[in-house]
Amino acid sequence: MNKSTFGNLFSVTTWGESHGPAIGAVVDGCPAGLPLAPEDIQIYLDRRKPGQSRFTTARKEDDAVEILSGVFEGKTTGTPISLMIRNKDQRSRDYGSIAYCYRPGHADYTFDQKYGFRDYRGGGRSSARETAARVAAGAIAAKLLKEIGVSFCTYTKSIGPVAASVFDPDEIGRNPLCMPDHEATEKASAYLDECIKKKDSAGGVIECIIKNVPAGLGEPVFGKLDASLAQAIMSIGAVKAVEIGDGIQVTAICGSEDNDGFTVDDSRRIKKTANHAGGIMGGISDGSDIILRAHLKPTPSISRAQQTVTKDGTPTSIEIAGRHDPVVVPRAVVVVEAMAALTVADALLANMTARVENVRKVYR
Amino acid sequence: MNKSTFGNLFSVTTWGESHGPAIGAVVDGCPAGLPLAPEDIQIYLDRRKPGQSRFTTARKEDDAVEILSGVFEGKTTGTPISLMIRNKDQRSRDYGSIAYCYRPGHADYTFDQKYGFRDYRGGGRSSARETAARVAAGAIAAKLLKEIGVSFCTYTKSIGPVAASVFDPDEIGRNPLCMPDHEATEKASAYLDECIKKKDSAGGVIECIIKNVPAGLGEPVFGKLDASLAQAIMSIGAVKAVEIGDGIQVTAICGSEDNDGFTVDDSRRIKKTANHAGGIMGGISDGSDIILRAHLKPTPSISRAQQTVTKDGTPTSIEIAGRHDPVVVPRAVVVVEAMAALTVADALLANMTARVENVRKVYR
Amino acid sequence: MNKSTFGNLFSVTTWGESHGPAIGAVVDGCPAGLPLAPEDIQIYLDRRKPGQSRFTTARKEDDAVEILSGVFEGKTTGTPISLMIRNKDQRSRDYGSIAYCYRPGHADYTFDQKYGFRDYRGGGRSSARETAARVAAGAIAAKLLKEIGVSFCTYTKSIGPVAASVFDPDEIGRNPLCMPDHEATEKASAYLDECIKKKDSAGGVIECIIKNVPAGLGEPVFGKLDASLAQAIMSIGAVKAVEIGDGIQVTAICGSEDNDGFTVDDSRRIKKTANHAGGIMGGISDGSDIILRAHLKPTPSISRAQQTVTKDGTPTSIEIAGRHDPVVVPRAVVVVEAMAALTVADALLANMTARVENVRKVYR
Amino acid sequence: MNKSTFGNLFSVTTWGESHGPAIGAVVDGCPAGLPLAPEDIQIYLDRRKPGQSRFTTARKEDDAVEILSGVFEGKTTGTPISLMIRNKDQRSRDYGSIAYCYRPGHADYTFDQKYGFRDYRGGGRSSARETAARVAAGAIAAKLLKEIGVSFCTYTKSIGPVAASVFDPDEIGRNPLCMPDHEATEKASAYLDECIKKKDSAGGVIECIIKNVPAGLGEPVFGKLDASLAQAIMSIGAVKAVEIGDGIQVTAICGSEDNDGFTVDDSRRIKKTANHAGGIMGGISDGSDIILRAHLKPTPSISRAQQTVTKDGTPTSIEIAGRHDPVVVPRAVVVVEAMAALTVADALLANMTARVENVRKVYR
Repeated sequence: MNKSTFGNLFSVTTWGESHGPAIGAVVDGCPAGLPLAPEDIQIYLDRRKPGQSRFTTARKEDDAVEILSGVFEGKTTGTPISLMIRNKDQRSRDYGSIAYCYRPGHADYTFDQKYGFRDYRGGGRSSARETAARVAAGAIAAKLLKEIGVSFCTYTKSIGPVAASVFDPDEIGRNPLCMPDHEATEKASAYLDECIKKKDSAGGVIECIIKNVPAGLGEPVFGKLDASLAQAIMSIGAVKAVEIGDGIQVTAICGSEDNDGFTVDDSRRIKKTANHAGGIMGGISDGSDIILRAHLKPTPSISRAQQTVTKDGTPTSIEIAGRHDPVVVPRAVVVVEAMAALTVADALLANMTARVENVRKVYR
Repeated sequence: MNKSTFGNLFSVTTWGESHGPAIGAVVDGCPAGLPLAPEDIQIYLDRRKPGQSRFTTARKEDDAVEILSGVFEGKTTGTPISLMIRNKDQRSRDYGSIAYCYRPGHADYTFDQKYGFRDYRGGGRSSARETAARVAAGAIAAKLLKEIGVSFCTYTKSIGPVAASVFDPDEIGRNPLCMPDHEATEKASAYLDECIKKKDSAGGVIECIIKNVPAGLGEPVFGKLDASLAQAIMSIGAVKAVEIGDGIQVTAICGSEDNDGFTVDDSRRIKKTANHAGGIMGGISDGSDIILRAHLKPTPSISRAQQTVTKDGTPTSIEIAGRHDPVVVPRAVVVVEAMAALTVADALLANMTARVENVRKVYR
Repeated sequence: MNKSTFGNLFSVTTWGESHGPAIGAVVDGCPAGLPLAPEDIQIYLDRRKPGQSRFTTARKEDDAVEILSGVFEGKTTGTPISLMIRNKDQRSRDYGSIAYCYRPGHADYTFDQKYGFRDYRGGGRSSARETAARVAAGAIAAKLLKEIGVSFCTYTKSIGPVAASVFDPDEIGRNPLCMPDHEATEKASAYLDECIKKKDSAGGVIECIIKNVPAGLGEPVFGKLDASLAQAIMSIGAVKAVEIGDGIQVTAICGSEDNDGFTVDDSRRIKKTANHAGGIMGGISDGSDIILRAHLKPTPSISRAQQTVTKDGTPTSIEIAGRHDPVVVPRAVVVVEAMAALTVADALLANMTARVENVRKVYR
Repeated sequence: MNKSTFGNLFSVTTWGESHGPAIGAVVDGCPAGLPLAPEDIQIYLDRRKPGQSRFTTARKEDDAVEILSGVFEGKTTGTPISLMIRNKDQRSRDYGSIAYCYRPGHADYTFDQKYGFRDYRGGGRSSARETAARVAAGAIAAKLLKEIGVSFCTYTKSIGPVAASVFDPDEIGRNPLCMPDHEATEKASAYLDECIKKKDSAGGVIECIIKNVPAGLGEPVFGKLDASLAQAIMSIGAVKAVEIGDGIQVTAICGSEDNDGFTVDDSRRIKKTANHAGGIMGGISDGSDIILRAHLKPTPSISRAQQTVTKDGTPTSIEIAGRHDPVVVPRAVVVVEAMAALTVADALLANMTARVENVRKVYR
């Protein structure tokens, strides 16, 4: 059951509401012997921390992670790693209309339909704050993957109508929008300023490239690596579409253009002549870069008036008070990376049992 | 673990290779008391059967399903339903180059990388033939969903560069391409004839609309209904992108345009003023139509020469012999529908336990 | 995967080491709308708290539970309930020989074999302290079950060679050994005093009776209710045998003696004429009392000298310092009850989907 | 969910009813490259085949297994292995009172309570015939385990009041009761003849010893190896108690007697000085023999008159017609072994991911 748990062998269970005392994650199945310090996790959390630019919420959270279990003398022990992040800025206040109205574009209505009532404080469980727990867990997955050389390059590909057209990897970490294109960043910033002025919001596209993934990860049928990635990425609140490799563009071209041929490199190792497939063939990694894109909708919380109803069915209008992120894309970059890392780490462990010769290798 | 199993409460496990004696599915968790006859399943299987137009493989399979367990006196018993479809056209023959070469766009290379060797006969386990088992299982899921009024409308939205521009539901079942637009069908057919002539292939887009889904299905975090649907649909071999609702189009518009407002209907029931979200908010169904799109790549099997290598790393060229579907989209329509039905049926059962009042209703 | 998670629909994941900062549990899948306060949990935790008699460890823990998520305005929200118990008495100290020797009867050696090293402080993850997290979670399961009338009666049936021979339910809560027999309690106390004097320890038997379980819980094959209970109970550290109903006694009698006949009560409701089966037939609850027994080994920590080796394989002798429970049975009574409650709650939710008519009841 | 599936990494899903067309199992997760022929499975099935002595049912079944998928060129491919056994002796006949009466000691009543109706032909899904599918799957697990030297010795320890008192391994395969004691076999046979004469039945005890299991298998908390074994064994229809190692005997002795000490062997490898624990410490295998015992109730089908009711609640009497096994113990020996093999194989694969160094070994 994947209610609040993701992954089978390397799994994470998240818990916590936006305005409860804390949020957290339990990572189970991380192999023993992995060096792990709070800083390994903090560096990831800092990438999604609010308040780092004028385009993010002013909520004050230092998002300091506590490791409560599963690490001893600086190494993972193989038992569950419990991570907790205290909510600092959850002071009791007047939730006003949010408590009895349904915010358009949010989960208020569907939570009430599912559970009969909801924790309305700041969106409760459906708040994007839950993703901090995923990022903390993803940092551990990424650390494990680094052991065998897997690395990630994740960035904003577009914001609203503004797309990056050059790829300068150094630029990604240098600007608050995580775009690999300085000029596009300028344009996107201007576009966002316009959104703020109009009390509106923007969406965008995130691309994630995963390098050095060993060939063989993923299961041939329902557990295809791309299927697991699609679930992982689509489970991030604002995501409305997921692409692998050339994605939607493949529908209009011919097989002869789309198929990746095979050849050998100088050391006679087999490699592909192209990577339209995005590193996954028949659901299994082929050793090339894995490439995926997440399409995120505009932030639903906007301060202009919107048509809605109260939970008793009385039509009304709502203006979401407070300052919200006019765009969540830049902060979601590390969330996409975290979910991708969790997926690949889980597939990495699952694939260890694919061959009898691996059984022999481990148990000699 | 979802190696060969999909779903938790309403689950299906598929088995079988393209050229083995049979393929099959075990459906576990179907509630007892559902009327079920082989015809309920056969009608779905017939929608994906090969040989129904000049655009599909000439492989001869009547795809007759046998129900081996789980049904007694015309009703499901609550125990596993075993479904088997004999492979008829799997006569031993010369697999030629397929046995030792890697077909571009196929899983040959990745299977060898994962498992050390592979059943190369007709693609073995990675053959699209496996989807027949999914369709058989999906037919049962659809039958269950029909009990509470859920229905499906699935069709080809585009083939290659040719998109349907009108929506005539009666047209869908009337033409071999499953398009809801007569004129587009003509153009797509001409495009496909061109592909065949060029020894090439085409991809396309499938749209699935699910009607009358009760509000409340899906879990708030990793088990979001859209996340599960994304996994389900992306697990179909040729799919490279999945969209929910307005999908990729939401990235370029503003929150005020994308948010679905709320109002009440004449009987004062709450409803949305639009459905950009595609029937799912915060991962939970909202009672509107669920809308999803699958983007499929062109059939990788093409008869023109392609660059490849043998498994020993010797560069060579391959021409895939035999007549293959120049496009899999029309036959994949029912596969998309089956996977969507399996996903929704599973979420339907999972949601039954969401409230204490439901526990009381069942156990009074 | 049930590494650190138990249950599918009503599930609990525990985390934490004996001498880490805290231990905890995440309960996922508890239906929304269940009234829940910290006291509901505390009352269970207090039943296993150390330091309540001369027969339990002097470790000072108030075992106060914090509910960190999943409860709003006094009711469960349907989202994960995170429970945390701070370790108070885990002051840094000299772990002496425990760090490099293998304690007989403990998991020290097997943890090293599995993970390559271990958190040796107080047994780390394999400490009985982990069961506090189970008890906290079990309290929630029991609260849910109470909603439909299910209740538990769990007690010590024997300690060492001293068995209870009368059943006085009021006596159970009145004495520190949780025995339903005043005289046997006296004898058992004398036996334990003798064990302490000999620097030795004792085991015993716990019986759990579950009343008012609806008929129909449990799955017919691998998920039999008795099979799930067996796993649940055997997963408690010291348990070496589990019996259902008449248990081991049935092997020596005849079918005609063992079979429970059927009859009707005054309101013509079907009931059994006996309950040798212990309330479960073919793996499914039959509406009678469910009866199970757990057989616990003597506490492995004893202060007399024992033969062992260091982790480098040097033979040595070990005397476990400090005062340990000479018997864990009385404190394990509530652990057995908690695991039984978790098992039955999970089966209760699973069974809700067994019939199409239940689907209709919930979704009308 | 373990409705009809057992195991996570090495998993089996069984299907089929006693009098349906066939029964079967889908084994998923068996590593690729294991040599496997139908005979490897048949040899196990033949050990539980009916009609081999006067103490087993006269039902005619040759129990020939068909491998429908997952094996290519004599080796497992890593994809699901579908096994099918046709029911031969399921000719339509008059099920008489079984259709509307509840047989004492059977699952008739509980199936009706759970599902609303049941396949009454020969017990349907709750028939012991289902165990043939487990045995077929267990044979594959055993084959995998043999690759690293794990072997099984399983036998009848007692029948009714007659226990084996000597252990002659050669005797086990030589007599129809699978007892390791010739004299006890004679006595047990006489006891069973007496049971038949009295139209009654007997139970008994099965012991299973698993040799050469590597240390480290099993998870520390809920997935303890003994907990998984307990579930596996208790999920066999007639089993009412499960013991590990010294089992129930440990409750009456002292810790100093029960604890297994440690020493080193001649090659300075660490070993235990005793094996009261039965090869599992803290839920993890310690490298010693794993020892477990299953206690089975007498066959519930007896031909003497028993008190029961019809499904409408009319008291009546039932005499089970036909010739049934007066004892199921000898035929259940291989079922216990199969379930143990499935459990250990699953734990073997799960443990491969316990250490980062194993990840490196596999992916170098």
